[in-house]
Amino acid sequence: MPRILRIAAAQMGPNQRADSREAILARMIALLEEAAGKGAKLVVFPELAFTTFFPRWLLEGEELDQYYETSMPNPRVQPLFDRARELGVGFYVGYAEKTPEGQRFNSAITTGPDGSIIAKYRKVHLPGSVEPRAGDRFQQLEKRYFEYGDTGFPAFRGPGDWGAPVMGMLVCNDRRWPEAWRVYALQGMELMVVGYNSAAYDPNGGSTENEEIRTFHSILAAQSNAYMNATWAVAVAKAGNEDGSGLIGGSVIVDPNGVIVAQAQTLGDEVLVADCDLDLTRQGKEKMFNFAAHRQPQHYRRIVDQVGAEPPA
Amino acid sequence: MPRILRIAAAQMGPNQRADSREAILARMIALLEEAAGKGAKLVVFPELAFTTFFPRWLLEGEELDQYYETSMPNPRVQPLFDRARELGVGFYVGYAEKTPEGQRFNSAITTGPDGSIIAKYRKVHLPGSVEPRAGDRFQQLEKRYFEYGDTGFPAFRGPGDWGAPVMGMLVCNDRRWPEAWRVYALQGMELMVVGYNSAAYDPNGGSTENEEIRTFHSILAAQSNAYMNATWAVAVAKAGNEDGSGLIGGSVIVDPNGVIVAQAQTLGDEVLVADCDLDLTRQGKEKMFNFAAHRQPQHYRRIVDQVGAEPPA
Repeated sequence: MPRILRIAAAQMGPNQRADSREAILARMIALLEEAAGKGAKLVVFPELAFTTFFPRWLLEGEELDQYYETSMPNPRVQPLFDRARELGVGFYVGYAEKTPEGQRFNSAITTGPDGSIIAKYRKVHLPGSVEPRAGDRFQQLEKRYFEYGDTGFPAFRGPGDWGAPVMGMLVCNDRRWPEAWRVYALQGMELMVVGYNSAAYDPNGGSTENEEIRTFHSILAAQSNAYMNATWAVAVAKAGNEDGSGLIGGSVIVDPNGVIVAQAQTLGDEVLVADCDLDLTRQGKEKMFNFAAHRQPQHYRRIVDQVGAEPPA
Repeated sequence: MPRILRIAAAQMGPNQRADSREAILARMIALLEEAAGKGAKLVVFPELAFTTFFPRWLLEGEELDQYYETSMPNPRVQPLFDRARELGVGFYVGYAEKTPEGQRFNSAITTGPDGSIIAKYRKVHLPGSVEPRAGDRFQQLEKRYFEYGDTGFPAFRGPGDWGAPVMGMLVCNDRRWPEAWRVYALQGMELMVVGYNSAAYDPNGGSTENEEIRTFHSILAAQSNAYMNATWAVAVAKAGNEDGSGLIGGSVIVDPNGVIVAQAQTLGDEVLVADCDLDLTRQGKEKMFNFAAHRQPQHYRRIVDQVGAEPPA
């Protein structure tokens, strides 16, 4: 029986700070409907999809609190869940999570066709800093606003009517870390879903990498890690000029050969769809990347025994 | 003080089984001289550069033995070492090693400008099989002819007049394994050198990946692992139709952004040269891939705790 899952990448344009939650949710529902109309059974939204990328500012109190979801679902997001259930479509979405105990994480969930949450993930690789950089208009304060994810990288099985794929979730910066992909691949991952908000340039006017090279890096990470882990990968941006700070697009659906089968052409709301044959992962898993036959973990100890680099004398 | 090292990738066309060692060495010396003439201080040759890729046949006895070097250097390779010392050029070269105790490895060395061996590596990720596949004209018997490398991934410092780069060596299939790159990067690697012999297609006429996708995979592995480890990478093929079996080309020199700065255009003997600014690795090592700031090894345990994949129920 073929295991072909039609997946949509629902790239989003920017969510401005002044945009109402209702307006953002209406855009997400429109993307969901477009994807469902094209036959997709799984729709992948970006990281922090319900809000602007608020870690770019030093905030506190009520203004900061409003960006977090204290339960999932909740009344502010319920219309998306309701519409998805009506359409029989599952989705991945990233959001800022605040637990009843007050812990805060940069999280993502995947829902099934019945609207229930089937898996949850909390971002492990938080970029940025705890303290703001003096004098900078734009910050990157993820290490201030979130704790490091405590879920590890727990693979899970998607529903039977998706072909029961072994799935993994990551959030944004995680996708650049081969360790994260490998831990999922060691659980047989066939499909990786990841949303992101990635700066297109230095919003404070510095001369580091430009938008072209940053988009290249994002796509390179998706292609190579899909190939080296023999998995499908769907990587989805929130893109464009968000509150004066540029975000790359470059959303892609990548096959287990690392080949791009669909790629966003805009920096706005845009739906990509691809039929993903989950059994295309077999060639890699059974030959080139047959882990049981070829891996030599006794030589990989540094990966867990040290954190930073330790150069020779 | 800028740390700019001019490096040459010395791609080789095929070494036919009938070619004399003298003829092969003469080609290698010509490549070395061309590279030195262009100002290169380090020349990177392929895996098993002195011979045909003999694991494609089931061999034994004297015929098999002739492919191994029982010491390094030795009279059969001495002219290359002599010419390199005269030119003040170091090199990486892959060869089949047989130790005095009779152990056999798929090895590589790097020599310094004075002709001395400064580091040695034995291939960890051996593809292929121990037993031949019945009925196949061409085999892949690396697991039969070599033991798994016992060196691990030991980074080393290149000579001062190269800018004292922290270097790593891999051999062929190793380059597809992100674990190998990461272990070197955890030692501060700034320059990876790797030679390969990679099949361009199934020489037995099967319908697996074609030459285009296999070349894409090879280049993708070099680009992505250079980027994700903030290192220069030089990946060099033995290419072309070797004894009736096709080998990909696609030799590349890749910068720490994952951008190709030089790429082979042929499947024959060909020298690529690039000026590699070792300090270009700093941007990645100090920001995006600042391991000490961002890695979370407590979540990477599966990488060393298991060999094969273990899918969820």
